[in-house]
This record gives sequence, structure tokens and C-alpha cells, in this order.
Amino acid sequence: MSDYAKLSPKQLRALMRNGHYTQPTAGLALGYAQANLVILKQELAFDFLLFCQRNAQACPVLEVLEPGCFEAKFLAPGSDLRTDLPRYRVFRDGVLMSEPLDITALWRGDFVSFLLGCSFSFEAALVEQSLEVRHISEGRNVPMYVTNIPCREAGVFSGPLVVSMRPFAARDVAKAVQITGRYRAVHGAPVHIGDPAALGIKDIARPDMGEAVTVHAGELPVFWACGCTPQAVVMQSKPDLVITHAPGHMFVTDLRDKDLETIGGMV
Amino acid sequence: MSDYAKLSPKQLRALMRNGHYTQPTAGLALGYAQANLVILKQELAFDFLLFCQRNAQACPVLEVLEPGCFEAKFLAPGSDLRTDLPRYRVFRDGVLMSEPLDITALWRGDFVSFLLGCSFSFEAALVEQSLEVRHISEGRNVPMYVTNIPCREAGVFSGPLVVSMRPFAARDVAKAVQITGRYRAVHGAPVHIGDPAALGIKDIARPDMGEAVTVHAGELPVFWACGCTPQAVVMQSKPDLVITHAPGHMFVTDLRDKDLETIGGMV
Repeated sequence: MSDYAKLSPKQLRALMRNGHYTQPTAGLALGYAQANLVILKQELAFDFLLFCQRNAQACPVLEVLEPGCFEAKFLAPGSDLRTDLPRYRVFRDGVLMSEPLDITALWRGDFVSFLLGCSFSFEAALVEQSLEVRHISEGRNVPMYVTNIPCREAGVFSGPLVVSMRPFAARDVAKAVQITGRYRAVHGAPVHIGDPAALGIKDIARPDMGEAVTVHAGELPVFWACGCTPQAVVMQSKPDLVITHAPGHMFVTDLRDKDLETIGGMV
Repeated sequence: MSDYAKLSPKQLRALMRNGHYTQPTAGLALGYAQANLVILKQELAFDFLLFCQRNAQACPVLEVLEPGCFEAKFLAPGSDLRTDLPRYRVFRDGVLMSEPLDITALWRGDFVSFLLGCSFSFEAALVEQSLEVRHISEGRNVPMYVTNIPCREAGVFSGPLVVSMRPFAARDVAKAVQITGRYRAVHGAPVHIGDPAALGIKDIARPDMGEAVTVHAGELPVFWACGCTPQAVVMQSKPDLVITHAPGHMFVTDLRDKDLETIGGMV
């Protein structure tokens, strides 16, 4: 991972475009924002954008592309959303059908692409302030859980909140809250601290997406709203065709994380 | 104005519903959020919501209603957007046609209503911290100006940024920036401080909307992104039918301004 960490977002996207990098992106291009991807048909675009507005902590919109457009002109000029992520997920009628490395063959002229903020953006800030981010130090994908908290509905879209989890020592939890609270454009402060059962999580060692990480004695699991929420919502709402990034396999943008500290909820 | 200032949002909306209050709403129900209103046909709703996302400082979305719905269930349960504002504006093909007190007769089943944050929300915080808000102390509507700054386009919508202006003594400007910067859901920090000409404003004494206020010697005009921006955009983009609040005649909600300090860009 360490060699890749030194590459620029543009270099990384080129590797992904050619299928040479197909792994999770945590820890890559530290200092640059990564984004969740949701692609759906234009007829669903208003409902989904409204869903994002109503669930902004889980779905902070960084960029929405014009129908048919696959270049993220604001976040990454010259990019191609059909090829520049390491791995995608294709959902048909709410069922995960495949996890391709490229979606060029599936592209349609009426697709609208949404790029949502990702918690990886505040991880650089946590690390800078001497907090260990467990899944980075263990070289794993961040653990994610489907909770029992319903999102606010919008049109055809409804479903549960998905959270990501990072464990911190009791003395460091407040620091983690304060640091991430400054990043409102990328999920902001945690939604829950401690007891996983209160979120309906049965076994912290068995995440619904991503990979488990070690939680040491004396540490609390800290939960942030997660940009994989739309995937759980798609599974429940069952639109005929939706494409997303594969969990942890994000779109690496040219936007600096630092810029997200001042731009509030949205660009 | 002072008698009205003591009424609750619900009491004020009832007065407006019955046509007994038809004036600007600055200084009313201090401590409660007021909102800009934009109503348009469902076919334009995605473009407009995207416009708001792309111009979030001018158009911070607080609530979007389902098509045909006129009760703001989140911001003001029991409200009726067709009657509960003191005055409306009706635009046809981008031209301001009338300023009625009630739009019940114009209502359509395919109307989508948008409620956007309003700078009045941070005025209570300014006053609390001993800053004089000129248009409140002079009993006028806030002065608003159409600038030479283009908004980011979205679909059919394009046009200039509109700003509101409050003058402050040079020693108080930084304080005004810091206080309002905490209210990102309602325009946040100023977009411009000082020289009106740099925004294309020819005469500070002749605002495009609202009323002029006194700017004393030693004071700087301070400009915030304004929720009347959609009105200037409608005039340029010319959709066939749009209804808005009349400038300064806002929707008074049940949401406390204090809540806006922590909710970031959106609810």
C-alpha cells in the first residue's frame, strides 16, 4: 500500500482505469478527498437527490453530473467515472448482480452520477493529530454495518442507515469527535459512540460490508454515518438498475480534504 | 413591529393566513428560523434542486416537499405554504406578474416547494452579541443587490448571485464574520466585504430588492449570499411559472435558529 500512497489522484485513477489497481482505497492519496459513487436513471434522479438532502450526514453531495455525463468536471477534471474506480457494484431490482472493474459496457445516455463525501477524508486529519485509524494500520477495508435506524424517505427511496466504525481509546473519543465534526461535507461528527447493540449491530466482529478490525480492551467503537447507505437503500427500494462503487473502493478526487473543512455541507 | 415580535411562529402564520399581516418579517419571532420559498413544476424540480446543491451558500435547502404537498411537515407542522407567507411573487416566463397575499387559486398538483435558509436566522445571534443590525433598528426590509457574480448553472437554471447587505464598523466586521460563519445552513460567512463596485453594485443607496439602510462613516458594507438569488435566476432562465415569497416576506418556521448552528448545510 505504501508505494501507492505516494501517487497523485490522477496517477491512481490512471492505474484504476487500466485495471492495474483493484483494491480498497483507504490510505491512498492522503490529503485528497475520496467519494462514494451512485449512478441511476434520470427518472430517479430527483428522488435520489432529495434523499441525499434529507439524509445529508450519510449522503453529503459533493457533485452531481448532468445526465449522460461521466466526467466529474468539478472534483476531477479529465476523469471517467465508467473506468476510474477500482471496483463497482451493479444492482438490478435491488439485488447485487456483479462487481465489475469497469462499467463502460453498461453505460446509458440517461444515467445521472452522484458523488458523495467519504469518511476517508477526515482520516488524514485524525492521523495528523496522532490518532490511530485502526483499519489503515491493519491494512484492511473499513468495517461497515447496516443499522436499525431508518433514513428519512424520499420518493421511492427508503432504507436503513449504514455506519462505518473506528475504535478509539476512551481518552481519545472526544478528540475524534471534535476533529471529524469539522468535516461536515464528509459525514461530520459520529452518529453513535459505544454500544453496537443500540444500533441493532449483533456482532461487531462481523461487519455487513468491509472487514472487521481489532477493538482493544478499553476502546469504544465509534460510528459515523456512511456513504454506503445508498447501497442498503437500493437493496430495500429495488430500482431496476443502479451502479455504485464497491464498498471501500472509492473515487479518488483532486479536491483536497482541507477544502472540505470550510465548504460546509456541499460544494 | 414590537408587538408582533412577541408572537410565536404559529401565531404569526395564522395572522398571515388570514391576511392580517402583510409586511416584511425581519425581527419577527426572534430565535426562530425564517425561510425563502420557491415553488415550481415537478418537471423542473431536479434542475432546481441541483442548482441549490451547486450554489449552496445562496440556496441552502432546509426542506423540499413532495409534489403537490403544501404542508412543511418538518419545519412547521400544520402550516399551509399557499397562505402562510405575508406576500408572494408570481413569475411567468421570467416576468414578475403579481405580488398576491395568497396563492391558493394558483396551486397545482404538480408543484414542488423548496424552503431555503434565510440570513434573518443569524441576525438574532448578531444582536445577542451586541452588534446592531441596521435594517432591524431602522425598521426596514433588508437591502438586496443583484451582483455580477454568476451562479454555477444547473439544467435550465442560470443567473447572477443576489446578496443582502448589513453595514458594520470596521472593528466589528471580524466579529460578524465569525458569528455568521457558524450558521452554514443559512448562508454562513459573508461572500464579500467592502467595495460594492467589485460586485457590480453601482449605488449602495439603491438596492434591487428590499430597502436602503444608512451606512455611517467608518462602516463597511458586508455582503452575504441571499435566498432571493432564485428570483434573479428565474428572471434570466424564464421558466413558464414560478412562485416565490416576496423579498423580505419570509416563511416563519418552528425551527429554532440555534438548531441551524449544528446541522451544517442541511437538515
